[in-house]
Amino acid sequence: MMSAADETRVAIALHGGAGTIERNAMSEELEATYRAFLDDAIIRGYEQLREGRAGLDVVVNVIQLMEDSPLFNAGRGAVYTWEGAHELDASIMHGENLDAGAVAGVSTVKSPIALARAVMEDSPHVMLASRGAEAFALERGFDLVSPEYFATERRREALEAYKANEQAGLKPEADHKFGTVGVVVLDQAGNLIAGTSTGGMTGKRWGRIGDSPVIGAGTYADNRSCAVSATGHGEYFIRHTVARDICARMQFGGATLDEAASTVVMEELIEADGEGGIVAVDPAGRVALVFNTPGMYRASIDATGRKVVGIYGEDETP
Amino acid sequence: MMSAADETRVAIALHGGAGTIERNAMSEELEATYRAFLDDAIIRGYEQLREGRAGLDVVVNVIQLMEDSPLFNAGRGAVYTWEGAHELDASIMHGENLDAGAVAGVSTVKSPIALARAVMEDSPHVMLASRGAEAFALERGFDLVSPEYFATERRREALEAYKANEQAGLKPEADHKFGTVGVVVLDQAGNLIAGTSTGGMTGKRWGRIGDSPVIGAGTYADNRSCAVSATGHGEYFIRHTVARDICARMQFGGATLDEAASTVVMEELIEADGEGGIVAVDPAGRVALVFNTPGMYRASIDATGRKVVGIYGEDETP
Repeated sequence: MMSAADETRVAIALHGGAGTIERNAMSEELEATYRAFLDDAIIRGYEQLREGRAGLDVVVNVIQLMEDSPLFNAGRGAVYTWEGAHELDASIMHGENLDAGAVAGVSTVKSPIALARAVMEDSPHVMLASRGAEAFALERGFDLVSPEYFATERRREALEAYKANEQAGLKPEADHKFGTVGVVVLDQAGNLIAGTSTGGMTGKRWGRIGDSPVIGAGTYADNRSCAVSATGHGEYFIRHTVARDICARMQFGGATLDEAASTVVMEELIEADGEGGIVAVDPAGRVALVFNTPGMYRASIDATGRKVVGIYGEDETP
Repeated sequence: MMSAADETRVAIALHGGAGTIERNAMSEELEATYRAFLDDAIIRGYEQLREGRAGLDVVVNVIQLMEDSPLFNAGRGAVYTWEGAHELDASIMHGENLDAGAVAGVSTVKSPIALARAVMEDSPHVMLASRGAEAFALERGFDLVSPEYFATERRREALEAYKANEQAGLKPEADHKFGTVGVVVLDQAGNLIAGTSTGGMTGKRWGRIGDSPVIGAGTYADNRSCAVSATGHGEYFIRHTVARDICARMQFGGATLDEAASTVVMEELIEADGEGGIVAVDPAGRVALVFNTPGMYRASIDATGRKVVGIYGEDETP
């Protein structure tokens, strides 16, 4: 039997969205449901990595668990646009060759992260949008679903509350823009992979594209520095190229993963009023789970095998 | 009378696309037309900056000159998609607060750069796409045009050649993906602004989004480092977050503008096979015009007043 130290290092971290997630606003049952889901998902991803599965497969597999669950704002459970539709975004990036794929504004694709992977692997492009992306999905034989597949009562109520608020001239609920999911891994081949999938913001209009499908903003991976998936108020994450900047601070500035992630999320973004968080992993299998909101659904297992599962700010960190 | 040294420094650089632009493939008349256009555009932008106009206005004004000209692949003169339509992209960024706006895949908006500015100034979002972006344009009273406005014989022939090539199993013409326009400035207030506008790639499909509307890829501006507008094979520019990386190498790595731009364009991109180029300006009013293709339509006037206008690789550089 080998000890942990004899084996090839792997690591994984995931998020299910950041925002105003507070203990007193959540039932014990719902909290337990989230914790059990996060715990199960991180273990399943970690086991796949330990079995030697390619990081790309693991990122897609774990994101699909979350896309298929109505607990998260991605795939089934995605929020509604202003017009009462769903427009899903996703992206994925491989740190070895900087290969990347992204889709924005798709309404009929069951797994946007799988489509993002197909854009990366089977098209000459990086980013496809809306009906064009759906035509590509159809050509590639993807599972297409009717809009009802994405319909959930909870998100329908959130749209109605958002519209009522806006019509009354009130500030929108703080959480109308959160709930994105993302996964980052270090696999046995030493590759860093990042992926992100989302339904975007409740009540979004005009074909709004957030940070999730923008390479460099919501997702980035480079074996020379780190892999990052972000969640939060996407406009700020685009303007600050959050995912890329964390990697760039390591690559060009010599920062550690923790230093880079903390500077971007806890200094730059707070100064700019950009709420949200990130999960990241570096080539040594260190993980960072950093957020400037009251909570972030999150889990990780680093290269030493240490597991963390958390929801609120006061939960343990890696 | 004041000498140049007494006045507030301003600088401007522009590009009209990079690619296989070679002397023996261009008539003398067409070359003279391009040179006169570039010379006129750079002087007009420079004069506006010297008069104290805000850099944001100057970037939009000079890009609109190029959008309105059929010489460039932006606005009128944009290339055709596979389906024979036009899908225009643009983005703009202000280096003071990292404000940014972008539109992707619009078909009815006369000036995509003006719409990108409106997204930045009059919407809560950074990036709007396709029909949604057009609905926003309509609400904001923008000039909408019919598809015929963008129709040009030269680009129609390019699409036909592209399709014939593809049907014959041949490699596409090298230049089917070039011709984007972009402008970067340093204004009297010390602000760095960048903007980019394009019709994308001839024969593009599936709602492909290139680097031009992607903040960090085709466009970036940060008063702490530089302003960059890129042109080239957009997929590579997204994966390498080219515009942001040039700024990041200055901000985090202490590189000069020339060093940062040369490393990214002449080393990283060449190694990855990513053809194209950039124009950039730093807070001291130094400019960089760097490309790894045989030519790039370009012009600049730096803070010392030195003007450069060029097309081929062997033309003078700043």
